[in-house]
Amino acid sequence: MPEYRQVYISEIKNYEAQRVCLKGWLYNKRSSGKLHFLQLRDGTGIIQAVMFKGDVSEEVFATADRIAQESSIEVYGIVKQDKRSPIGFEIGVENLKLVSEAEEYPITHKEHGVAFLLENRHLWLRSPRQHAILKIRHQIIKSIRDYLNNRGFLLIDSPIFTPAACEGTTTLFETGYFDEKAYLTQSGQLYNEAAAMAFGKVYCFGPTFRAEKSKTRRHLTEFWMVEPEMAYYDLNMNMDLAEDFVENIVQSVVQNNTRELEILERDVSKLENIKKPFPRITYTEAVELLKSKGKEVQWGEDFGGDEETVISESFDKPVMIHRYPAGCKAFYMKEDPKNPELALCVDVIGPEGYGEIIGGGQREDDLDVLLKKIKEHNLPQEAFEWYLDLRRYGSVPHSGFGLGIERTVGWLCGLHHVRETIPFPRMMERLRP
Amino acid sequence: MPEYRQVYISEIKNYEAQRVCLKGWLYNKRSSGKLHFLQLRDGTGIIQAVMFKGDVSEEVFATADRIAQESSIEVYGIVKQDKRSPIGFEIGVENLKLVSEAEEYPITHKEHGVAFLLENRHLWLRSPRQHAILKIRHQIIKSIRDYLNNRGFLLIDSPIFTPAACEGTTTLFETGYFDEKAYLTQSGQLYNEAAAMAFGKVYCFGPTFRAEKSKTRRHLTEFWMVEPEMAYYDLNMNMDLAEDFVENIVQSVVQNNTRELEILERDVSKLENIKKPFPRITYTEAVELLKSKGKEVQWGEDFGGDEETVISESFDKPVMIHRYPAGCKAFYMKEDPKNPELALCVDVIGPEGYGEIIGGGQREDDLDVLLKKIKEHNLPQEAFEWYLDLRRYGSVPHSGFGLGIERTVGWLCGLHHVRETIPFPRMMERLRP
Repeated sequence: MPEYRQVYISEIKNYEAQRVCLKGWLYNKRSSGKLHFLQLRDGTGIIQAVMFKGDVSEEVFATADRIAQESSIEVYGIVKQDKRSPIGFEIGVENLKLVSEAEEYPITHKEHGVAFLLENRHLWLRSPRQHAILKIRHQIIKSIRDYLNNRGFLLIDSPIFTPAACEGTTTLFETGYFDEKAYLTQSGQLYNEAAAMAFGKVYCFGPTFRAEKSKTRRHLTEFWMVEPEMAYYDLNMNMDLAEDFVENIVQSVVQNNTRELEILERDVSKLENIKKPFPRITYTEAVELLKSKGKEVQWGEDFGGDEETVISESFDKPVMIHRYPAGCKAFYMKEDPKNPELALCVDVIGPEGYGEIIGGGQREDDLDVLLKKIKEHNLPQEAFEWYLDLRRYGSVPHSGFGLGIERTVGWLCGLHHVRETIPFPRMMERLRP
Repeated sequence: MPEYRQVYISEIKNYEAQRVCLKGWLYNKRSSGKLHFLQLRDGTGIIQAVMFKGDVSEEVFATADRIAQESSIEVYGIVKQDKRSPIGFEIGVENLKLVSEAEEYPITHKEHGVAFLLENRHLWLRSPRQHAILKIRHQIIKSIRDYLNNRGFLLIDSPIFTPAACEGTTTLFETGYFDEKAYLTQSGQLYNEAAAMAFGKVYCFGPTFRAEKSKTRRHLTEFWMVEPEMAYYDLNMNMDLAEDFVENIVQSVVQNNTRELEILERDVSKLENIKKPFPRITYTEAVELLKSKGKEVQWGEDFGGDEETVISESFDKPVMIHRYPAGCKAFYMKEDPKNPELALCVDVIGPEGYGEIIGGGQREDDLDVLLKKIKEHNLPQEAFEWYLDLRRYGSVPHSGFGLGIERTVGWLCGLHHVRETIPFPRMMERLRP
């Protein structure tokens, strides 16, 4: 047997006219008496391998004829330019080795219901559409980390096990922790604040958890969030950073994921348009906007998914809504010195109806105001003594925000539902596989 | 007031002879009648700010005299070269603004007990030693992600909530999940295997959990792990990758963290020495080695911390121990075709007594053998049907490993105990702050 170099489909263009070995799975097949067109996938791409009856042994030709979709195979052959191929090349097959013959594959090239696909998520991942989504997810996460690492932010992995609830207990997952109880984190923010006082600019990036008893297209029980936190940043600096951050993520996907956006039939012009500056409106202006669109909304109420959708559809860029009523927001948000009824917070609502992708704000840095807020919110002061210490020992103005990964993936991929934005989604009624 | 440019200490060398504003905290202070030497930290470094009585207002001089360690301050002045300074520059102070006056700081520049420091972890993070450790942690994580991203690995965030136990239930954290129970993941491997069949080369990187009722210097209840998994990789390819991966991580720290390693008084020559090839010995050879060192150990028993330490001290590089008795290892490890009593697995033991840093191996790809193993381990087959599907639909040889971040940080920083290797450690008796 001649020598074959083992390569991946993604690097095939470097091996024109050379003998290669590709190891992967049979993705699809078309045959005519003397010819098999085998679609081979190896995780990095799909290539057509053309097998002529006369070029291989009878046994090999019969094997190719018999084997079902997703059988694992090694294909040996010569790389040939092919202008009709989406990747520009095909393989002229000289030999094929069957690694493992697949049973009849449950996910055919026809349409399937979502419940069935979710039940078979471990196999569904093999489809080109899921490839495109998870490659874009990978790029989003990479661009986030690169952005922050290149700007002097230190990664601070905040704890998952926390002793106290930060924003109420109703949506917390609880676990026994030896002789006491622990809760799964909903946000690393409080810990981030401690780290920002030590390191200036920090971020945490990990899974967060919400036991929400709601089945909406925007909620997972387990989702990933990146949270930058900066000492000596006020609300405006925080908004400037969030804006630049989002532009950077979106443009990195536009630049690096052309093929994936094509597979998803995403309107790329809508993403190319996501450039600074983003519109900034106050909560009060957002209420006026909603009223003008016929929405009944009372000043003082928080916005829900419906309101976010209406606001979102009024702009072709993310909208930054700042200065919500303090009553809508968590205890740690700083009061607006010009109007203590308002919090110096900001939510960023994605365009095209994709909802809130960022929530953040300036943190209360005054010890006495914070003590008052903890009482007003009926929180146990004792649990927050360490957090209060950050105001006792060198308090500084500081701000930060959290960006939800799955919602960002959903937006950039143009997905109606977040369930496809993470490899193994966890929802109220979905804990498997 | 003249114009001052706001900068970070880490970039001070670009501003020689210029007016700058530094925002940070008073780290330390030395005074003599007409002079204050203020050590200012801003998270990116520490710089000396020299204040002459005649150069500032009386009020400012008195403030500098009065304020305690960790008070937050803004320092305005001129950048001057100073050869005695570790960073080569100091500030000639023209003005100082007190942001917030600190109460008496609990962590002084004297020695404190570890229990006290852990209780005040939110403040302890501000110390130069903790800075050095967490900067090295950051670099380790960055180099891991860069390494894998640059080599075609796709990030697959595996789920934290899992429905079934992968390696026994005694060390699992359990949580209510609506009407059923969920367990916190101990490893993303099984999910990784599904993803490797879809994408070829993948990795997951997230927190993992073990409810271990042991208080050793090597155990946290919550720790981070990176787990690469590769289709069409056998044990040897897996070991080659692990070796190259570890060399790369160690050398990236040697190159990028000179200052931090110095602060930690780490013997850098020991790290510079971590170059391929690493010694590879079989489990059976390791047993012989232990016996020759006077350790009583029976062939067939797994190694504990003591054995790992003895093996580790026999080499100046990480040791790769392969082919343990199948009985010591999880059900999914592939049998050695040359001797079914052995598993095609590998543990990598760090040098200098730092224990196991990698565990991995080739996975069982034969459906029938895997079914047999699941029965032998008394595992519920039903829970593993999706995992068995990976052998029904295009099974291929595949391998992977997991590297523990905290143990790696401990090793490279030269720390006796893992508790300082993560921002907020979680141990059997430590859930706060």
